[in-house]
Amino acid sequence: MTKYDSAPTMKDVAKDAGVSLGTVSKVVNGLPVGKVYQRKVEASIQKLNYQVNSYAKGLKTNKTYTVAFLVPDTFNPFFGWMTYYINRELEKRGYRMLLCATNADTRMEQSYITMAQQNKVDGIICLSYNEGLQVQEGLPFVTIDRHFSGSIPCVSSDNFSGGQMAAQRLDELGCRHVAFLSVGSPLVNETTKRGDGFLSYCASHGLAYELLRLYDGAPFSEFTDFLQQHLAGEAPVDGIFCVNDSLAVKIIRYLREQGVRVPEDVQVIGYDGVKDYITEDYHCSTIIQPLDKMAEVSVDMLLSQDWSNTPTLVCLPVTYASGGTTKE
Amino acid sequence: MTKYDSAPTMKDVAKDAGVSLGTVSKVVNGLPVGKVYQRKVEASIQKLNYQVNSYAKGLKTNKTYTVAFLVPDTFNPFFGWMTYYINRELEKRGYRMLLCATNADTRMEQSYITMAQQNKVDGIICLSYNEGLQVQEGLPFVTIDRHFSGSIPCVSSDNFSGGQMAAQRLDELGCRHVAFLSVGSPLVNETTKRGDGFLSYCASHGLAYELLRLYDGAPFSEFTDFLQQHLAGEAPVDGIFCVNDSLAVKIIRYLREQGVRVPEDVQVIGYDGVKDYITEDYHCSTIIQPLDKMAEVSVDMLLSQDWSNTPTLVCLPVTYASGGTTKE
Repeated sequence: MTKYDSAPTMKDVAKDAGVSLGTVSKVVNGLPVGKVYQRKVEASIQKLNYQVNSYAKGLKTNKTYTVAFLVPDTFNPFFGWMTYYINRELEKRGYRMLLCATNADTRMEQSYITMAQQNKVDGIICLSYNEGLQVQEGLPFVTIDRHFSGSIPCVSSDNFSGGQMAAQRLDELGCRHVAFLSVGSPLVNETTKRGDGFLSYCASHGLAYELLRLYDGAPFSEFTDFLQQHLAGEAPVDGIFCVNDSLAVKIIRYLREQGVRVPEDVQVIGYDGVKDYITEDYHCSTIIQPLDKMAEVSVDMLLSQDWSNTPTLVCLPVTYASGGTTKE
Repeated sequence: MTKYDSAPTMKDVAKDAGVSLGTVSKVVNGLPVGKVYQRKVEASIQKLNYQVNSYAKGLKTNKTYTVAFLVPDTFNPFFGWMTYYINRELEKRGYRMLLCATNADTRMEQSYITMAQQNKVDGIICLSYNEGLQVQEGLPFVTIDRHFSGSIPCVSSDNFSGGQMAAQRLDELGCRHVAFLSVGSPLVNETTKRGDGFLSYCASHGLAYELLRLYDGAPFSEFTDFLQQHLAGEAPVDGIFCVNDSLAVKIIRYLREQGVRVPEDVQVIGYDGVKDYITEDYHCSTIIQPLDKMAEVSVDMLLSQDWSNTPTLVCLPVTYASGGTTKE
């Protein structure tokens, strides 16, 4: 009779190899450890005839150490960076990422949720702007920028403060008549608060404002008609806040084509703060989302053991950077 | 005694539900199918008490329908697009992607190779510029842009032709003295052939050329010293081919800062052809890599059943696009 009269556990392997339980877990899950440790653990596994699969059975649920990340795509730089940071945060904690580029397809999103419910992944982090996703209560699930109904936690940048910050900055830089321009999903999501914060500042500080919120698919001419109207007259718009940098860049290009000088005649601020990969410059003056911190908090919340104690919304602080389209 | 006196198979489920085997496989693997089909299959699974895990056991290897993709990061737009396309191609074939942003860390790359060898993933697609990765013969493994030793297949754009194409274009556009500039890994990889193709054209067509190949970490001043030297004199350089768009953008910016007009005085061509996400413009005149096709071929080769019949190098055709830094 050997020392191990029942099936050996991971603890037995750790003891035999003289390493920590975490090291054995990493080896078993194919994660990187030092070569010397790798060899020690592998030798003990062989010696004790430890069956790798017994590990999973020993836990109260079949832990897979795998988390699914649902994101529309990875070529939008905002999504590309978020994918990178979440991947890094999962890796730090010994987890792997199943990536699903959804193209915003609800059916694909739902199929991954089904997988999670079957315990084929330990949880889901979801960046979706779709309505009607059905998520079981209690399933480890964290959203980014999109506040689902129920108690599903959402992580976002502090969009309301960001909007306020943009208005305050335009105010301080001498603007007397500002505008908020947005285009996006008709669904109420966290990014809607960018405009809310902007208008809240204007209303509470007596700063005159205009407003144009469009939905995806609206023709760009609706923006240009709006601008034509408000750049003329006695009190033309002299400051614009756009819901994201992408829209800001398009608006700035249009203004310059019309002979309107940016920032001399009109100052423009966007939102996101993802630098151009090649030039390493901001695309415009912008409110910067803390993508690394958002990824860290999303992963921490998802893997939190005390799921009941999780806040339903975490807003992370934003900062402002001049990108040459304001008068600093 | 029921109709199913032994453990029911996936075929039994398909027959009972009146759907194809592929549909059952999708449901079992959590992939999207129509709601009606989903319900039919789930009802049959319950009725027959079909055990999902018996599926894997029935195959000669434990197929996971999961492929690992190793890539340095996802914020470099070239990598972001490649990740997206490979994800899409895997999804089309009913496979999922385990994403590993390696930061070019060899140890992390090696740990995923170990996973694959333990049959925890069905194969690996690897975009790595590291040396010394150890890959077992016979392991489903495809590289992009990096030709490993042995019979491991590599998929890349046709770098040699791309280099020739750039030289020919500069020649046709009137250049009389050209230069090739590159910076990258000191390892010989497929991208090295961009310069080879360029110089081959110059040598065979009597086009005078200069050459500066630097390695990662070299100071940018080595480029500017080189340019200072070759933009002066009786036969100044009037055409430049850069190893990628990123370097081309930096060179163009430097030239313009020095009062050298692009494309009037010096024409510049880069390589990659990834458009700016926001402006949707090319960053410069460029050789376009067919990223979607490269992803498709990589996935097809990896999942090919006849692994012995796989070519070791597949070069896919490139195209040229003017991006305003040449005289078209």
